[in-house]
Amino acid sequence: MMLPAQLIKKKRSGLSLNAEEISYLINGYVKGDIPDYQMSSFLMAVFFKGMSEQETLWLTEQMIRSGVTVDYAPDNRLKVDKHSTGGIGDKTSLILAPLVASLGIPVPMISGRGLGHTGGTLDKLESISGFNVNLELNAFKKMVTENNLCFIGQTPDICPADKKLYALRDVTATVESLPLICASIMSKKLAEGIDGLVLDVKFGSGAFMKSIKEAHELATGLMNIAKGAGKRVTALLTNMNQPLGSFAGNGLEINECLSVLKNQPLLDANNQDRSKETRELSLALAAHMVKLVTNDPFKVCLEKCTTALESGQAYEKFEKTVALQGGDLNLIAKPKHQWDVFVPQNTAGGYLSSFDVEALGWINVQLGAGRRQSSDKIEPSAGMQFHAKLGDKIDSQKPIITLYGNDLEKLKTAGSQVTQYIQFSPTPLTTPFQLIQAELS
Amino acid sequence: MMLPAQLIKKKRSGLSLNAEEISYLINGYVKGDIPDYQMSSFLMAVFFKGMSEQETLWLTEQMIRSGVTVDYAPDNRLKVDKHSTGGIGDKTSLILAPLVASLGIPVPMISGRGLGHTGGTLDKLESISGFNVNLELNAFKKMVTENNLCFIGQTPDICPADKKLYALRDVTATVESLPLICASIMSKKLAEGIDGLVLDVKFGSGAFMKSIKEAHELATGLMNIAKGAGKRVTALLTNMNQPLGSFAGNGLEINECLSVLKNQPLLDANNQDRSKETRELSLALAAHMVKLVTNDPFKVCLEKCTTALESGQAYEKFEKTVALQGGDLNLIAKPKHQWDVFVPQNTAGGYLSSFDVEALGWINVQLGAGRRQSSDKIEPSAGMQFHAKLGDKIDSQKPIITLYGNDLEKLKTAGSQVTQYIQFSPTPLTTPFQLIQAELS
Repeated sequence: MMLPAQLIKKKRSGLSLNAEEISYLINGYVKGDIPDYQMSSFLMAVFFKGMSEQETLWLTEQMIRSGVTVDYAPDNRLKVDKHSTGGIGDKTSLILAPLVASLGIPVPMISGRGLGHTGGTLDKLESISGFNVNLELNAFKKMVTENNLCFIGQTPDICPADKKLYALRDVTATVESLPLICASIMSKKLAEGIDGLVLDVKFGSGAFMKSIKEAHELATGLMNIAKGAGKRVTALLTNMNQPLGSFAGNGLEINECLSVLKNQPLLDANNQDRSKETRELSLALAAHMVKLVTNDPFKVCLEKCTTALESGQAYEKFEKTVALQGGDLNLIAKPKHQWDVFVPQNTAGGYLSSFDVEALGWINVQLGAGRRQSSDKIEPSAGMQFHAKLGDKIDSQKPIITLYGNDLEKLKTAGSQVTQYIQFSPTPLTTPFQLIQAELS
Repeated sequence: MMLPAQLIKKKRSGLSLNAEEISYLINGYVKGDIPDYQMSSFLMAVFFKGMSEQETLWLTEQMIRSGVTVDYAPDNRLKVDKHSTGGIGDKTSLILAPLVASLGIPVPMISGRGLGHTGGTLDKLESISGFNVNLELNAFKKMVTENNLCFIGQTPDICPADKKLYALRDVTATVESLPLICASIMSKKLAEGIDGLVLDVKFGSGAFMKSIKEAHELATGLMNIAKGAGKRVTALLTNMNQPLGSFAGNGLEINECLSVLKNQPLLDANNQDRSKETRELSLALAAHMVKLVTNDPFKVCLEKCTTALESGQAYEKFEKTVALQGGDLNLIAKPKHQWDVFVPQNTAGGYLSSFDVEALGWINVQLGAGRRQSSDKIEPSAGMQFHAKLGDKIDSQKPIITLYGNDLEKLKTAGSQVTQYIQFSPTPLTTPFQLIQAELS
């Protein structure tokens, strides 16, 4: 007979648990036979002693088995998805998903909401009036088969073990454990019934992983699980030392995506098209998704994706998908007010040298673009626009950031805080900003 | 505002908590504001990151404040107690307590029951028919003042935080943490309202601490708390690589104590008085207790104690105390059966070289002398007698151990297991067994 306390002690001593022991713990916890207080001390032991690759895979598999796995039969085409570890202005899903789907590849996209200082795909989609992310799993499956694309949120029957564990980790200081993070992310993705996954693992001041080394470790942990589960996987390590693209904020990001999908550049106060980065990363991730399914060379896949984007077929797929899910692209949340933020006089003529992207993300939360607590309501029109990026020469006559929202006082308060999170240098940067820094497969 | 998850994270990071934070955690836990699942992850973080001397003292103080502290006013004489970390045949309390009390020094003895493979003072006393260890605190105080001695068990109003924490540690694999062990032991002892404490910290195969180094660490941790709380304290590190004295088992140990208190040697199958060790350690501990109160040199205290023992005044105090607590020394649990265990033939002529004392302790539990679970019932007559000790030449014609109890089949089964836990050597031991190995103050 297994005793929970003995399994906790085993992990505490740095030993590995076997498949049966992990199954006993996770099943027992979901059923309520193992109480929270034993699970939380186990999780803290995992925080200190880690889990082997094999243990992490078993944990992930048990978490998947705690709920349903989406099965698309008789549609047996290879399905592919993308997962981002989260950033500011990180809106690529809304471009790459219709793009890949427009090439005839099914993209079953089960997304999350904003977490902490980062945004979430569901919140962005809901800034489109009428958009319904709460479809039943059967409706989701049907739409993936017929439309190649559907966007929904987590349903309660997918990975209930992860939901229960995550809520416990959140209040017991056991969130920051690599095997637990990896199992949590991958259990939800693998339960989608995908065959391939492209990971956008972000590092930098706006990411959960501040260094590229940590991002590399996270990517490796995630990829090990995907491979252990027999899935095709690629990871890009991408730079979140500046917000991605022009806008951060739900409705604002939808508009930026539409400009990319419609090939209509959005010019900012400096006559720059800041959505170029959004386009670059969306195309790269989409091409890797296509490559996982077709096995064609990356260059070929990137050409296919670029053509699908430029021809407007990606936009058509997005437009159709929005309509199928009840959304009206003519009714995207619009802010009542905007507030321009200028650089301090003494920095004029210098160069933008760094962003504290996480702090800017928290200001965005303060404006209403995200949530402090899960019960908070989103203000879909709120957010910010970036008129300058790393390395840009600073013009004190032009705004550096514009804030948007329905509450002018909030914009003014945030406006007085923003510039402390942006650093300037009197000389140009020695190394230009590089968005995609590594590819792992 | 303090958040439990932040305090857990602080400890998880290896930082020290301050007095206010420890108070918040312990008070909140006792009140039920902080749930078990947060406390258990905190305890696991303490297991890995430890606690400073100062934190451990604050933790102990908070645990004491969770309940009542015994106050003997107007009796302001200095009071002294002894605590042993537990062993097999460890019966010194029953001799030293009446001995010290017979010298006019109050000994408020709040004892425990058997834990794991070790025995407990309360179980031993209850093998005397009628003995009542469940007195109210007021009756206890009165008897300490009038009789200088009273034996009781923990009352629910002493250190409730320790009770709640210990029950949680037991099922979350967080027992084996030095600061938690020290705080648990010392909170209960300090709540007794004592001025001085002698610690008998055991090491060896029958002790919780297997090495003298670990015992030294434990003794240091316990003494730091006592000193931090302004108490006088001495610790002896004593050898538990063989059972103490002649007998292990509740009624059997009472008989051994009576033989020491009455100065009537008990001879075993080899015509040896094995209770000499019991006498030696009881006198040493008693003398240190007297020294803490009187500040007389140890030699003077030891002489006083020896005289009190030899004169019979210690026995008189024990007899009177037993009577006051309802016990009848003519009715000590007597076993129906005994079973002699002999050495294997091939070891005859050799020397006893080692005991697995913990394993022997578990056999004693199996005979009924201890409990597997707290709900188990004790068989007060059960136990074992040791006819040979470390270094003794082995005579295969004489029993090495005699087992006692009411169930002959149990004795036979245990008898077939015992000798595997005793090792023999063909040559005499190079170093004689030394009972008291170090004194710390």
